[in-house]
Amino acid sequence: MKISIIVGNPKPASRTRTIAEGLVDRLVDAAEHDVTVVDLADHAGQIFAWPSEELSELGRTVAESDLIVVASPTYKATYTGLLKGFLDRYAADALHGAVAIPVMTGADLTHSMGPDVNLRPLLVELGASVPTRSLYFVTSHMDRLDEVLDEWVAANRSALGGVLPADRGLASAGR
Amino acid sequence: MKISIIVGNPKPASRTRTIAEGLVDRLVDAAEHDVTVVDLADHAGQIFAWPSEELSELGRTVAESDLIVVASPTYKATYTGLLKGFLDRYAADALHGAVAIPVMTGADLTHSMGPDVNLRPLLVELGASVPTRSLYFVTSHMDRLDEVLDEWVAANRSALGGVLPADRGLASAGR
Amino acid sequence: MKISIIVGNPKPASRTRTIAEGLVDRLVDAAEHDVTVVDLADHAGQIFAWPSEELSELGRTVAESDLIVVASPTYKATYTGLLKGFLDRYAADALHGAVAIPVMTGADLTHSMGPDVNLRPLLVELGASVPTRSLYFVTSHMDRLDEVLDEWVAANRSALGGVLPADRGLASAGR
Amino acid sequence: MKISIIVGNPKPASRTRTIAEGLVDRLVDAAEHDVTVVDLADHAGQIFAWPSEELSELGRTVAESDLIVVASPTYKATYTGLLKGFLDRYAADALHGAVAIPVMTGADLTHSMGPDVNLRPLLVELGASVPTRSLYFVTSHMDRLDEVLDEWVAANRSALGGVLPADRGLASAGR
Repeated sequence: MKISIIVGNPKPASRTRTIAEGLVDRLVDAAEHDVTVVDLADHAGQIFAWPSEELSELGRTVAESDLIVVASPTYKATYTGLLKGFLDRYAADALHGAVAIPVMTGADLTHSMGPDVNLRPLLVELGASVPTRSLYFVTSHMDRLDEVLDEWVAANRSALGGVLPADRGLASAGR
Repeated sequence: MKISIIVGNPKPASRTRTIAEGLVDRLVDAAEHDVTVVDLADHAGQIFAWPSEELSELGRTVAESDLIVVASPTYKATYTGLLKGFLDRYAADALHGAVAIPVMTGADLTHSMGPDVNLRPLLVELGASVPTRSLYFVTSHMDRLDEVLDEWVAANRSALGGVLPADRGLASAGR
Repeated sequence: MKISIIVGNPKPASRTRTIAEGLVDRLVDAAEHDVTVVDLADHAGQIFAWPSEELSELGRTVAESDLIVVASPTYKATYTGLLKGFLDRYAADALHGAVAIPVMTGADLTHSMGPDVNLRPLLVELGASVPTRSLYFVTSHMDRLDEVLDEWVAANRSALGGVLPADRGLASAGR
Repeated sequence: MKISIIVGNPKPASRTRTIAEGLVDRLVDAAEHDVTVVDLADHAGQIFAWPSEELSELGRTVAESDLIVVASPTYKATYTGLLKGFLDRYAADALHGAVAIPVMTGADLTHSMGPDVNLRPLLVELGASVPTRSLYFVTSHMDRLDEVLDEWVAANRSALGGVLPADRGLASAGR
């Protein structure tokens, strides 16, 4: 199973990335799968470059994934321009066949609706299937990250249905 | 498999209903399943009544469905107040466990984004899984209904995945 | 100056109404203007009735207003079906020429974006000018209502510009 | 009066720019005002650079404007990442005091709702007043540009109210 994590934070190694990785860890046994993390902070200088072999390669890897976690901090009540710039490089429907999970982080609850009203429609427009709720995480709650992720997975695992491999029960049973 | 169709048109037996029923016909062999059509035009006088045994019963039937097609004409760029009034009667997360497909009809392409930016988030808020694209249908194209529905089903069947019964291949093969 | 307040709460005399009335009190000296309150809880049984002289009359009064405060509790992350049902009765662009202020109330900050992403576009679609920010009010803060309204008015008065009568400075100076 | 036009098209000298400039020409006599065009295609390499004196200077100029026309082609049903990247550089409420007009261009009517549901809330979040309807322009209608802009200005001039200078009547009278 191929999994990609796209992190739209202009700062590398962000909490947004930690949260997205934590989510994937709860869904599958990462060691047994092919997980690619695209931390866009490392590629910001190329986002508007045409052509860019570096970004084309990343784009292909993501598009071939079975599961894509798309994570962004909240900037102006929605996802970042960095994330949008990366996704804008795709042609229409380029993510068809993939399942995507929208994840956004924010300083408080004010922008809780951001992932469902902004990021989700963007992923649907790109052709991805978005069967679960979004995950919105308040960054001041990092000490409760495990608990929040466990709750999200419990509530949304069934919606991911056949996407997850048969070992998914084991992956979480080990926790 | 239990299937519900909610039709939010204040006029009964609308084209919106025809389209929603046509979609279900393409997804399953309706004769072999338990299909309930809730044409809200028939219940408009009860929408804001508390309590209403009639509406509570309808609400229960819909919430117990495996698949819910939620269809509305476009009023003011979004779903109708009639549909929202019906869905407002549910408690949070009441549709958890169901898969929902948002369907909207409009006079032209102007409000094509309506189902994805308005109806989809509403169904997600209610706890439903919305794994497919929405279907937006321009009512002046009724003569092309079969073609449009066939295209939609071809593009979205895989996202419905395990929701559909094993006979789904046969259901469409017969067409 | 004609002012209307539409309250979309199915329960009459709601906090949502109190908040909307408090906002108008801060914008103008209500005693000197023609203020109509349409508490939709009092008309719920007529919302889907055609024709309805009662609702047509209310609709005309609102449409002739210079300023319309449109207030709704948050149901399923957006405005109520009761409010939408009332507004659905209008033809396209029926509120052209009026300035509208979107107001929503909620139990916590989770749905803060509701008025800006859902109610505002609805009012724009109806032809109203929506020059200010929306007001989202957390109902557990009723003891801080005066403070919140004063802050909102201070931040948004200039955007209302020429809409308010020349006495508006006096109206607030008296507080 | 200070006016800024922000063009979010990654290609310079785009039709999107032409349309935005045409709109400003209809609203004021450009020769008598201070009009700045920020064609983001010319600054794409700096969008994610920190610090960037070039972008800070542009940002200041825009934020000091009385009127800002924000124009973007439609990418994935919404504004471009290039535009969002530029606007992300602002602090919250940085455009307070300015009036903004959302403009989007698209290949057909499919994404007509884009400016009202996506670009408008972004500008409101930045603190701008957005009193008019958005302008969505189908680029295959470039031969009808004058007509479309004239209609838009006729319908929205009153909502711009006191923003426009007293000579605005003359500006349009000359056409």
